[in-house]
Amino acid sequence: MSASPSQDIPGLVWNRSGFVGLTGSLLALSEAIDRRFLGLAALFSAGRQSFGPLLSVDDLRRVDYFSAFPHIVMFPACAARGEAALHRFAHDNGAQVEGSLRVGETADVDSVLAPAACYGVFIGMRNTDIGRSPRVVTVRGTCFRAESEFTPLVRQPCFSMREIVHLGDESSVSDFLARARGKVEDLAGEWDLPASVLVATDPFFDPARSPKYLHARLFPTKLELVQDGIAIASFNNHRNFFGQAFEISCSGEHLHTACVAFGIERWVGAILRRHGSDPARWPVKLESSPDSPC
Amino acid sequence: MSASPSQDIPGLVWNRSGFVGLTGSLLALSEAIDRRFLGLAALFSAGRQSFGPLLSVDDLRRVDYFSAFPHIVMFPACAARGEAALHRFAHDNGAQVEGSLRVGETADVDSVLAPAACYGVFIGMRNTDIGRSPRVVTVRGTCFRAESEFTPLVRQPCFSMREIVHLGDESSVSDFLARARGKVEDLAGEWDLPASVLVATDPFFDPARSPKYLHARLFPTKLELVQDGIAIASFNNHRNFFGQAFEISCSGEHLHTACVAFGIERWVGAILRRHGSDPARWPVKLESSPDSPC
Repeated sequence: MSASPSQDIPGLVWNRSGFVGLTGSLLALSEAIDRRFLGLAALFSAGRQSFGPLLSVDDLRRVDYFSAFPHIVMFPACAARGEAALHRFAHDNGAQVEGSLRVGETADVDSVLAPAACYGVFIGMRNTDIGRSPRVVTVRGTCFRAESEFTPLVRQPCFSMREIVHLGDESSVSDFLARARGKVEDLAGEWDLPASVLVATDPFFDPARSPKYLHARLFPTKLELVQDGIAIASFNNHRNFFGQAFEISCSGEHLHTACVAFGIERWVGAILRRHGSDPARWPVKLESSPDSPC
Repeated sequence: MSASPSQDIPGLVWNRSGFVGLTGSLLALSEAIDRRFLGLAALFSAGRQSFGPLLSVDDLRRVDYFSAFPHIVMFPACAARGEAALHRFAHDNGAQVEGSLRVGETADVDSVLAPAACYGVFIGMRNTDIGRSPRVVTVRGTCFRAESEFTPLVRQPCFSMREIVHLGDESSVSDFLARARGKVEDLAGEWDLPASVLVATDPFFDPARSPKYLHARLFPTKLELVQDGIAIASFNNHRNFFGQAFEISCSGEHLHTACVAFGIERWVGAILRRHGSDPARWPVKLESSPDSPC
């Protein structure tokens, strides 16, 4: 599959299997955007955490992820262990073969590729009590979602997500989301990105049968910042869903949580759509030299 | 699956499905280590690039990856598209189910989870000529390898790799590797990590049948920096292998390439084994405040 620099966007490299790379000024733009998100996180005194993209199947079952989002989940697989199966896999996928991978028999799958960055935070805090004071954490993660379409910088099967996650009680969660929404709208204004905050629902697989979907419709807990029809940020009130699922409490009560999530490649795309591909016209302050160590 | 802060290492969160997270000072250590690697890259005037971890099956076939490393390759899979298959996947993996994921019928697999960070560089340069001057690029990527064992910070199915990649001719590649080796040995010395450079071979699946293995044995092109029996860096002379595979040239000749690769989590582990878990005893300079924006 041929991958070459995109004709349209200097510095963007991709092919239709989902391979996406950023080079030169485009990478500097992506890093500068994320630095601003880190700056927002610092306004909330967020501590930084970092998680790899493998989550256990058990942990996602705990939030009934596979029932609600079977069409989105991606998981890492490998050929069945054992000489015979590995020889077959090697033989079936030699250099002369064409087309999709010939998968054959696979080993047991006990992990899933993270669909969002914040899961690691909740999983990592399982069975703890955070005490009285709310906490804020920021994480950046590589996320994977099975999508029926692929457009680089818009809809990618693999993308980077920055999240600011608030952990507290019902009232601190509301305060956080209101304040965060204001700060994110300010940032969109500063970068001259015309965008609107809209009520959204998560893309449940079978909404008619999903009690969670009904709940989400009745009590909207997800807002999205939408530019050109594309959600570039979301504001999510999880109520005590993750607190219950992972037995995390706040002074003895199930923890309430919320997050603000940014699709980093989508912000890069938003800047390009609005301001073009000439770095001199971007409203985002890049590092003085994109090639110098940070 | 229970994930909780490790009893042994403050700030490390993991469970045996391959889930690994770094928090607090441990994350700051990991970031400080990578900043030093970026500093090394800057000595070679490396430009920065960044690639997501999805590589096309076609591109890995081009380097005969599946024949040489069928036991290592991991690929992203998802349930077959279509209502019936998705309903079955959802039903088979409900909240009450236990054990491994019930995979069922999967959609076609056209991408692979990157086993190393440098592939993106070569794939992105396919069908180009770099002209006369050698170039150096640095990339950090999330990498995946099917492993029979899992030890956090030592042998992870998913880990972070920093690479410094040199692109040029036979002689510039040799010069780069010699100079890079010296710089990396100096860094290990500065951080008081007793380590040795040893000749290594890539872990071919079936060495006896692999002409590449024979070639690698006859003309060693891989060295590893080994501490406590664990390779924390490797120095790889690819000769013109990737230049041929991806039709990249250097003044009309097939490009020669080399890379220095660092397993970031392994360096974190190396510092902890040598200096303990108290940040005050680490020889690596952390940011003044690990929670401040970088």
